[in-house]
Amino acid sequence: MKRKPEVAVVMGSDSDLPIMNEAMSILREFGIFYEVKIASAHRSPALTVNFAKCAEKKGIKVIIAGAGGAAHLAGVIASHTALPVVGVPIETKALKGVDSLFSTVQMPSGIPVATMAIGKAGACNAAILAAEILGINDAKLKNKLKLFKKKLADAVTLKNKKLGH
Amino acid sequence: MKRKPEVAVVMGSDSDLPIMNEAMSILREFGIFYEVKIASAHRSPALTVNFAKCAEKKGIKVIIAGAGGAAHLAGVIASHTALPVVGVPIETKALKGVDSLFSTVQMPSGIPVATMAIGKAGACNAAILAAEILGINDAKLKNKLKLFKKKLADAVTLKNKKLGH
Amino acid sequence: MKRKPEVAVVMGSDSDLPIMNEAMSILREFGIFYEVKIASAHRSPALTVNFAKCAEKKGIKVIIAGAGGAAHLAGVIASHTALPVVGVPIETKALKGVDSLFSTVQMPSGIPVATMAIGKAGACNAAILAAEILGINDAKLKNKLKLFKKKLADAVTLKNKKLGH
Amino acid sequence: MKRKPEVAVVMGSDSDLPIMNEAMSILREFGIFYEVKIASAHRSPALTVNFAKCAEKKGIKVIIAGAGGAAHLAGVIASHTALPVVGVPIETKALKGVDSLFSTVQMPSGIPVATMAIGKAGACNAAILAAEILGINDAKLKNKLKLFKKKLADAVTLKNKKLGH
Amino acid sequence: MKRKPEVAVVMGSDSDLPIMNEAMSILREFGIFYEVKIASAHRSPALTVNFAKCAEKKGIKVIIAGAGGAAHLAGVIASHTALPVVGVPIETKALKGVDSLFSTVQMPSGIPVATMAIGKAGACNAAILAAEILGINDAKLKNKLKLFKKKLADAVTLKNKKLGH
Amino acid sequence: MKRKPEVAVVMGSDSDLPIMNEAMSILREFGIFYEVKIASAHRSPALTVNFAKCAEKKGIKVIIAGAGGAAHLAGVIASHTALPVVGVPIETKALKGVDSLFSTVQMPSGIPVATMAIGKAGACNAAILAAEILGINDAKLKNKLKLFKKKLADAVTLKNKKLGH
Amino acid sequence: MKRKPEVAVVMGSDSDLPIMNEAMSILREFGIFYEVKIASAHRSPALTVNFAKCAEKKGIKVIIAGAGGAAHLAGVIASHTALPVVGVPIETKALKGVDSLFSTVQMPSGIPVATMAIGKAGACNAAILAAEILGINDAKLKNKLKLFKKKLADAVTLKNKKLGH
Amino acid sequence: MKRKPEVAVVMGSDSDLPIMNEAMSILREFGIFYEVKIASAHRSPALTVNFAKCAEKKGIKVIIAGAGGAAHLAGVIASHTALPVVGVPIETKALKGVDSLFSTVQMPSGIPVATMAIGKAGACNAAILAAEILGINDAKLKNKLKLFKKKLADAVTLKNKKLGH
Repeated sequence: MKRKPEVAVVMGSDSDLPIMNEAMSILREFGIFYEVKIASAHRSPALTVNFAKCAEKKGIKVIIAGAGGAAHLAGVIASHTALPVVGVPIETKALKGVDSLFSTVQMPSGIPVATMAIGKAGACNAAILAAEILGINDAKLKNKLKLFKKKLADAVTLKNKKLGH
Repeated sequence: MKRKPEVAVVMGSDSDLPIMNEAMSILREFGIFYEVKIASAHRSPALTVNFAKCAEKKGIKVIIAGAGGAAHLAGVIASHTALPVVGVPIETKALKGVDSLFSTVQMPSGIPVATMAIGKAGACNAAILAAEILGINDAKLKNKLKLFKKKLADAVTLKNKKLGH
Repeated sequence: MKRKPEVAVVMGSDSDLPIMNEAMSILREFGIFYEVKIASAHRSPALTVNFAKCAEKKGIKVIIAGAGGAAHLAGVIASHTALPVVGVPIETKALKGVDSLFSTVQMPSGIPVATMAIGKAGACNAAILAAEILGINDAKLKNKLKLFKKKLADAVTLKNKKLGH
Repeated sequence: MKRKPEVAVVMGSDSDLPIMNEAMSILREFGIFYEVKIASAHRSPALTVNFAKCAEKKGIKVIIAGAGGAAHLAGVIASHTALPVVGVPIETKALKGVDSLFSTVQMPSGIPVATMAIGKAGACNAAILAAEILGINDAKLKNKLKLFKKKLADAVTLKNKKLGH
Repeated sequence: MKRKPEVAVVMGSDSDLPIMNEAMSILREFGIFYEVKIASAHRSPALTVNFAKCAEKKGIKVIIAGAGGAAHLAGVIASHTALPVVGVPIETKALKGVDSLFSTVQMPSGIPVATMAIGKAGACNAAILAAEILGINDAKLKNKLKLFKKKLADAVTLKNKKLGH
Repeated sequence: MKRKPEVAVVMGSDSDLPIMNEAMSILREFGIFYEVKIASAHRSPALTVNFAKCAEKKGIKVIIAGAGGAAHLAGVIASHTALPVVGVPIETKALKGVDSLFSTVQMPSGIPVATMAIGKAGACNAAILAAEILGINDAKLKNKLKLFKKKLADAVTLKNKKLGH
Repeated sequence: MKRKPEVAVVMGSDSDLPIMNEAMSILREFGIFYEVKIASAHRSPALTVNFAKCAEKKGIKVIIAGAGGAAHLAGVIASHTALPVVGVPIETKALKGVDSLFSTVQMPSGIPVATMAIGKAGACNAAILAAEILGINDAKLKNKLKLFKKKLADAVTLKNKKLGH
Repeated sequence: MKRKPEVAVVMGSDSDLPIMNEAMSILREFGIFYEVKIASAHRSPALTVNFAKCAEKKGIKVIIAGAGGAAHLAGVIASHTALPVVGVPIETKALKGVDSLFSTVQMPSGIPVATMAIGKAGACNAAILAAEILGINDAKLKNKLKLFKKKLADAVTLKNKKLGH
């Protein structure tokens, strides 16, 4: 595992940890070193802006940001960096994450946020996307990704065997 | 009309002017002095944060912010000030402003945005709400508000007369 | 704590108390005196209209109204007063509060309702907005608000420390 | 045609007339005498409450109310009368009448509003429902209704003939 | 209690009974005699059509129909009778009753269904609407309705007293 | 072209013809003989039920039904026949066909409607599905289908060539 | 029961089995032989494409495909075969299956997917639709279908008797 | 400009060109060489799968895929490659692109699609995200990105000057 973190996993609240752990678990599986940060776009704006501005200098290459409701975290970070920012909409009690999804994905021209599915699948995929991005210039990581994808297919084959087909 | 602006009308893009003009027109009707600002939460984050931090010192008492899509403007401003922030969701092409509404209204505990209706009615009402807020300590303005509300009712009575009732 | 209530917390039914208690708890935290009222726009219209008409005379400066479904309470109150009215959409069983949100926020030109998020976060924020409004002319309250916002940020910093960052 | 109006057609604004004319046209077709009223739940609340309270004494038997956005008109009227109230959700610019529909139909236990489809079909059907209600005790009107329904079916048969079937 | 049923309460499945019991309970409270019928627009179309065609002759004056999903029951009945038909959209597992609501309320010009709120409140209100309709020509029933509405208001007053206000 | 119609194309109103013509055009392309019928589930229920009951005896094998709003047509037909029924949700003015889609697709256990996309693409695909169904036992038709699918792919290849790739 | 499977029941994940079992149970009830397959459009694309291309040769006549979220399974299969493909949208945690429904039903011109209701009712109906399709050329199966539909109606009659009507 | 394309811009139909041109225009602005491809997941599945499998070998590093309705294109491509895939949901006539958005973003664990906003803003941002991804290992491109972001902020400053502030 590399020493210096290449990916930052940021979330609006520590209550998002059960979701965002999916991302960290995948990052560990791929041997990608990461840092974790609680940073609320609204409750701790200075900390958030500061994090976004300094991420590149610290060696971060991809930022994963998870937030729910009026989910501004990924967008606020994206407005302060030229690094790719991946947004994970967290499910909410009333609107079930549609609010989080729209707040994350409907970014204006100029400031993209790479938006994932709502919830755990999205957190998991944010890490895989980070691996795909880093894999462009890392043959070893790309091989891990191909193996990972092969395992997904093999698992389906295995399940069919269990069904007796 | 007072010299120093008490209300700031901020919007994400000058394409929002036709909507936000509704607010300014009402503010003028109430004799409330205001300043106008283009400030994009995403394209000009430094300008936006700077505006939000300095608004109170400049004498601003209420901030009206209009934005569309992943409408973070009102929320970003609210995170940097203790002034009341009124959000106007601007209609969007595809999602018709539901995205703007959810991004503006679904703020987390701690950072309120007083959200208005989507579009022109919302911009108009943002200014009336500002007048209601300022009117708490301004008897003259409160009287204007009561007169304004009376005129709304009188207009309905007049329309009934035109119908011949 | 001041003797005379400056804020009224109104709700359509006593079943809304667990939500609206969030608002009262914040008001107490800020030392703002408030009164509580059950007033249904539909089941007790006379009581509701009467409350709205008399609120200003009683010294109320901001009205917080929580209701669910075809949530007319905040709008009906706003139509009878020149005070700022803050609406809290209560979550509903089937439509999850989208009905409450649309019924509260989509007010016509002339009669604003300052709409908050659906549910507890909205109730909490309604009280903070009330504090922001009252804080315009109350330096002590404004300081409390700034301290409150600082505490929100400090709590995030603390959570990061717990994560070992 | 009867002299005294049995149905009242109320709407929040005269801009709703093109929609609500559908109702009046059907009422005339059935020979039901009606009165028309502009009454905004928000802009002219006193007029609206007064209308609702006096409708029964004036001989009104069914009230049709059309409104858009945070459409409180039908609900506010229903809260002040024991007459059946029929609600017509008017289409809105941004939310296309979903807001009007939810605000009209999601009434709490105790205060029903008989909600129709959004827009012209709803206005037309509000009048037919009024005719069905009045027809319970009016054999002549009931016959007209049956003839009306037969004509609807005959028109379909005719269209099939035109298609050459 | 009158011998001959004046209201029919129809539902698509006996699984809708817990919801539709709210309607029956109110009808009993008002002393309105009713009949109950399971009739699926889709699984028992002949029975449903037959019921709709014969309801008037049996003395039924108002039909209440509850159904969920692609909720065609109220519409199918309305297409075969000139009686007022009240529709209650039943909540569904996935779409939470939005499907039921749209299928019930969006009727084409010519065939109204008086649509109530989704679920129990809607079932309860369907019965109150039936009472309001029958009350047009039944002074005793109208008085009961006024008393019922007064009780709703009194209950709110009582709740306020319990709050100590 | 076969003499006796194997497919029936039914629609709620002749205003649906511009949409449903897409289906007829495809059926002609495949040499499938069809009949066209205007049949409203609500305005001409007897005609609709009669059509559904007699379709099989007339030699119809697949029924295509297009309707909008509270779109009950396909469901009503399906409740009276054991033939496969294909539903085409027609776009509506306010709700844009979401009402039509939910009313068509959310059928209860026991009575399927094979639902297509909203609007023209759905009408076109209804005819292709009919061809696929009839093609199970018609090798010639199946070949036409394969050729049709090949043409779709060839058209894409051609478009790429035009782009200069 | 026939030896060679005529229907294939495919699903994106074995976690969909509790839903898709509804389809298999109905197929067994009708004596239709089927095969079951786990095939993810995304995790095992080669297996899925291969299955779709070979289904016809193996004697499969109808394919039932259940998937949730960005539910591409039915569409991907339909793009590789001229057999009728029936899609069952599986309910999802956050969006409750609206995502699955839209991803399954909104197919472009040329490639139909016969879409069923979300969840168990949809899975059940997918099997009935398959029976209706196979029943076009199988008089015995068609009789079973008619009996099945009669039983549905009889069950309703029985339930009415239990209610004492 | 580099000779060999590093980005592929794929779309489901040439009717998507007016939207996807936004992406190409930005790519040219950043001096990123790209190839354009029409590839329908449904109408030309073989071409699509073939493209996805060969993209990496051809030197493509990022794939941008735009599609509407049951928008499977990005997902199908992502299932056949370990390259990062960016999805642009194209607006649709009836559902306004909500169908495209849900079909693109709600991918299952294992196969991410980096989803952008609906329509032109999304297409534009897809190209910027591609630049951000390629910029991780290309200092010159990263500088261009920072200049681009600075220009966005400068444009806002200029607009404020025009407003006279």
